Amino acid sequence: MTAPGNAIAGTVEPMSLAVREALGGHRGANPLVGAVVTAPDGTVLATGFHRGRGTAHAEVSALERFAAASRIPQAGATLWVTLEPCDHFGSTGPCTEAILASGIRRVRYAVADPTGPDGGGAARLRRSGLDVEQLAPDATAASGADGLNPRWVQGRESGRPFVTAHLAQSLDGRVAAADGTSQWITGIESRRHAHAVRSRVDAIVVGTGTVAADDPRLTARNAAGQDLPLQPVPVVQGRRGVPGDAALRSGPKGGPRDWIHVLDHEPQAVLDRLAESRISWPHGGARPGHVLIEGGPTVLAAWLGAGLVDEMFVYQAPLVLGGGPTGLDLPQLTTLTQAVSLQLDLAENGALSRLGEDVLLHYAAH
Amino acid sequence: MTAPGNAIAGTVEPMSLAVREALGGHRGANPLVGAVVTAPDGTVLATGFHRGRGTAHAEVSALERFAAASRIPQAGATLWVTLEPCDHFGSTGPCTEAILASGIRRVRYAVADPTGPDGGGAARLRRSGLDVEQLAPDATAASGADGLNPRWVQGRESGRPFVTAHLAQSLDGRVAAADGTSQWITGIESRRHAHAVRSRVDAIVVGTGTVAADDPRLTARNAAGQDLPLQPVPVVQGRRGVPGDAALRSGPKGGPRDWIHVLDHEPQAVLDRLAESRISWPHGGARPGHVLIEGGPTVLAAWLGAGLVDEMFVYQAPLVLGGGPTGLDLPQLTTLTQAVSLQLDLAENGALSRLGEDVLLHYAAH
Repeated sequence: MTAPGNAIAGTVEPMSLAVREALGGHRGANPLVGAVVTAPDGTVLATGFHRGRGTAHAEVSALERFAAASRIPQAGATLWVTLEPCDHFGSTGPCTEAILASGIRRVRYAVADPTGPDGGGAARLRRSGLDVEQLAPDATAASGADGLNPRWVQGRESGRPFVTAHLAQSLDGRVAAADGTSQWITGIESRRHAHAVRSRVDAIVVGTGTVAADDPRLTARNAAGQDLPLQPVPVVQGRRGVPGDAALRSGPKGGPRDWIHVLDHEPQAVLDRLAESRISWPHGGARPGHVLIEGGPTVLAAWLGAGLVDEMFVYQAPLVLGGGPTGLDLPQLTTLTQAVSLQLDLAENGALSRLGEDVLLHYAAH
Repeated sequence: MTAPGNAIAGTVEPMSLAVREALGGHRGANPLVGAVVTAPDGTVLATGFHRGRGTAHAEVSALERFAAASRIPQAGATLWVTLEPCDHFGSTGPCTEAILASGIRRVRYAVADPTGPDGGGAARLRRSGLDVEQLAPDATAASGADGLNPRWVQGRESGRPFVTAHLAQSLDGRVAAADGTSQWITGIESRRHAHAVRSRVDAIVVGTGTVAADDPRLTARNAAGQDLPLQPVPVVQGRRGVPGDAALRSGPKGGPRDWIHVLDHEPQAVLDRLAESRISWPHGGARPGHVLIEGGPTVLAAWLGAGLVDEMFVYQAPLVLGGGPTGLDLPQLTTLTQAVSLQLDLAENGALSRLGEDVLLHYAAH
């Protein structure tokens, strides 16, 4: 991999490097974005990527490293960024301001920001006199930049949150033994990862069957079992009741907590209800930006079957159960050609990782 | 990782390097073995590992590279090997001869060869005047050498072949859709790997149900679909009949072929029958050294349940089938604590790999 100090040429090579940087981030409410700063001779001066909601955007991250490391005049440098810089205030300031403040005068970006109100960064920078160009479509395609966030773009265009699904199973695809025992199939490292994902999202969806069977708390906790600062809103989907003493009703300190019951099996009905809700979402915004589907098998299958799952984490334990329920129940699929096809997701620097004794498989929807 | 040219000290460090080398090999009828040659000052002169049956043993491989690369007197060098050098003629010559011919006078090994007739290499080398020592148990444990081949040692001691299992499934653990369609769940790269494994083994076991449902040829083929030089012997397990025109009856050129039908559901009965059989095994020897279990679910589960599977390759496609049979059917397991526990296998340089769109997970029995 090209590292700072090496020289790169053309437009595809620096943008490809920015794409590889982008893959260090994780999927979610915000897109994967990578950025690179090069000197006039092509030397890589700094790289950066977006680490997730509430953190510095890719270009700001690269610019900060550039300012810290660079000894050559900034006016001669070029900023390469996989997505058009933003011009809006979210949980962090606009990237256009950081670029203007950096003194960089030349910006190349690959994909235009598809969302009107948040976009317009290129126009703003041009009005300030910067040399800003979007890469030609063939160079963008060759760099891989247009493949980074297809589902995020789709979700933004349709106004829906990004949807992540979790599946914790044995190596033979079981989520419980024949007698229903399921704690714990996967190990502590897998649960830690799952809790980190919970803390990234605005809402966690479970079915009434899961509430009845497992009575989950649906909080995001650290390795010591303490609640993390940002807690998702529990959403229960289904027509059965939720017991008055269900664990998910209690907040971090045992007090009351906002939660939502959607008396409908249709995932779209859940999304509609969340969009209308006046709940205070943990990551801000009038609507939830990121929703996690935890199960059980019927709920997970309904979201997958509806084409609404953007990514899925599969935590797979090195166990053979040989019986018991599987994690996905899609009776409407009867033959192989109807299978829901996903792909290995290269975000977070690779689709495959070891989590203690378990394996984490990261899939993305096409 | 320590590479040739770097210096290492003590006894644990060179042996740990030999262990890491060993993990480049694949499991099977022969053990994982790694070897390192060091100069008197600890400089690593050469490394090698055993690539499988019929290929040079680890120490021979390391010695060949040493002879090719070394410019310092060979008499000052030390050979480090994870397993006691062999003193027998198998499909390759004895390692002791290669060591004596190399001029190396100092050998350190970790694990003693547990099998009388094939072992004795250390004694032979000492009789020839070499300085040969086995590492102390704590150094062997610290290097990881004793964890390389526990199941291989067990199999040798009990006189049974090494047993590999295959499982090709969707990400939700299905081996076919609800209507039984199963060709092809996994992709071409997975099938190529599976065929390479077939060519390593002496026999492939399938159930009568698989013969009836899929009519497999059970040959090892290359990417172009041509039969590989070494072909496994088909073994059908179960009480149902095998049709007169079953594809597995035909050899590579369409002629007749040795195959075995064992009218018994017990895996041990299959092993007993194979041990008695006078068939000419593709890799030589009076008994099969390596057996592959291909399925279906009942057969695979019987072998796993009997504790007779030494390693398992899981080929997992990025598909959700949501229904249809799973690959392992163990009705006798009813609760989580009865699950068959495996572990990720670090042989072949890692338990996780991408095979095209699929994932290959490599598990070993404890």
